Amino acid sequence: MTRIRFQQSLDELKDQLLVMAGMAEQAIQRAVEAYRTRDLSICDLVSKGEEEINRMQRENDQTATDLLAMEQPMAVDLRFILSAIKINADLERVGDSAKNISDRVRTMEQMSAAEMPVDIPRMASLATEMVRKSLKSFIDADAELSCAVLAMDDAVDSMNRAAYKSLTTVMAEQSSLAPQALNALMIARALERIADHATSIAEDVIFWVQGADVRHYKSLKIAPDPHELG
Amino acid sequence: MTRIRFQQSLDELKDQLLVMAGMAEQAIQRAVEAYRTRDLSICDLVSKGEEEINRMQRENDQTATDLLAMEQPMAVDLRFILSAIKINADLERVGDSAKNISDRVRTMEQMSAAEMPVDIPRMASLATEMVRKSLKSFIDADAELSCAVLAMDDAVDSMNRAAYKSLTTVMAEQSSLAPQALNALMIARALERIADHATSIAEDVIFWVQGADVRHYKSLKIAPDPHELG
Repeated sequence: MTRIRFQQSLDELKDQLLVMAGMAEQAIQRAVEAYRTRDLSICDLVSKGEEEINRMQRENDQTATDLLAMEQPMAVDLRFILSAIKINADLERVGDSAKNISDRVRTMEQMSAAEMPVDIPRMASLATEMVRKSLKSFIDADAELSCAVLAMDDAVDSMNRAAYKSLTTVMAEQSSLAPQALNALMIARALERIADHATSIAEDVIFWVQGADVRHYKSLKIAPDPHELG
Repeated sequence: MTRIRFQQSLDELKDQLLVMAGMAEQAIQRAVEAYRTRDLSICDLVSKGEEEINRMQRENDQTATDLLAMEQPMAVDLRFILSAIKINADLERVGDSAKNISDRVRTMEQMSAAEMPVDIPRMASLATEMVRKSLKSFIDADAELSCAVLAMDDAVDSMNRAAYKSLTTVMAEQSSLAPQALNALMIARALERIADHATSIAEDVIFWVQGADVRHYKSLKIAPDPHELG
């Protein structure tokens, strides 16, 4: 394989991950739309999308492994390919979490509609933005944008904690609404997990770009942009 | 690096993963012991252990990356190192889940004790066994044992579904017990996630040993041994 052909293969892998990220974002949006409208036909789309994401993960993993085996890349290319393998796995898990949300929506069919003290669409929009930005930081090799994603994770975590508190209060005080409150709690948790995967992607980008391993080091977090979190 | 030295490095990586798996198993057992006895001092041990597991993950990741960079290994060694990187990540997540369980136990302090319709210690013992066997299958390059782990996952899944059903019934019918039921439900779910990580490790072993990618192919599962699941 020539150097040019090798570079093309790396670019293709990048493109594939970008497509997968787009599908993962769509899966989150669809799952939350299904939650909002209780339209189960959207859940079927999420399930089909998840299978497609799984298929892409296998393909990308194979591509990355083949590149390592055939090209024996050094230094920065090696770190790029290892990051791609990890990002690939995280995107697949974002798809799983979107599917978990849509599975929760299916169980809502028998429940009466009830207003819950949690802004699921807002959490979903933040989590989706984190997935998008973490991938953009990967495509552009932009470690500064990765750091912004790490900062956003704190906002989602605190929304999830607030949701937990208010929803357990509903459960304790209005037992007839316990099933709805539990569902909302599980969905908030799935969104928090999606944000964790975006964080993990952002950490991998920093590892790739800077050669430093920032996982488990919270000190690198920069102050969140108020416009993102507001 | 000589071939012998390279082989030693691979063996050291294997040993490190085995130590990490032991720590992850211990974390599960401690978290469930804390749940059973409501002894919060055990939760502190789980938190400390999780930091240690995180530290080991970073070290192992660096070792594996260095081996790839310096040795440019071919074929079976390459697949081994890639599997080690993935197994490393899964073990770290097992530690996270054990920590999640122990965090749940901390919130139980204000709650009165109540018998819940779920056998958490039994689920934990199955999940722990899966982690142990998945690592043993890795150490021994035993794809048959990996398949046995895949089969055990079905048992944990079905215990989790049963727990979900009975615990949501408690929530709906005895609202005063809703907090305890929710905690038990979250702990059952964390154990189911641990079983998923063991499954993922077993799949990576099969990928390494057989060169086949069995992820998302459930058809490869063999019938469970009744002694394991009974």
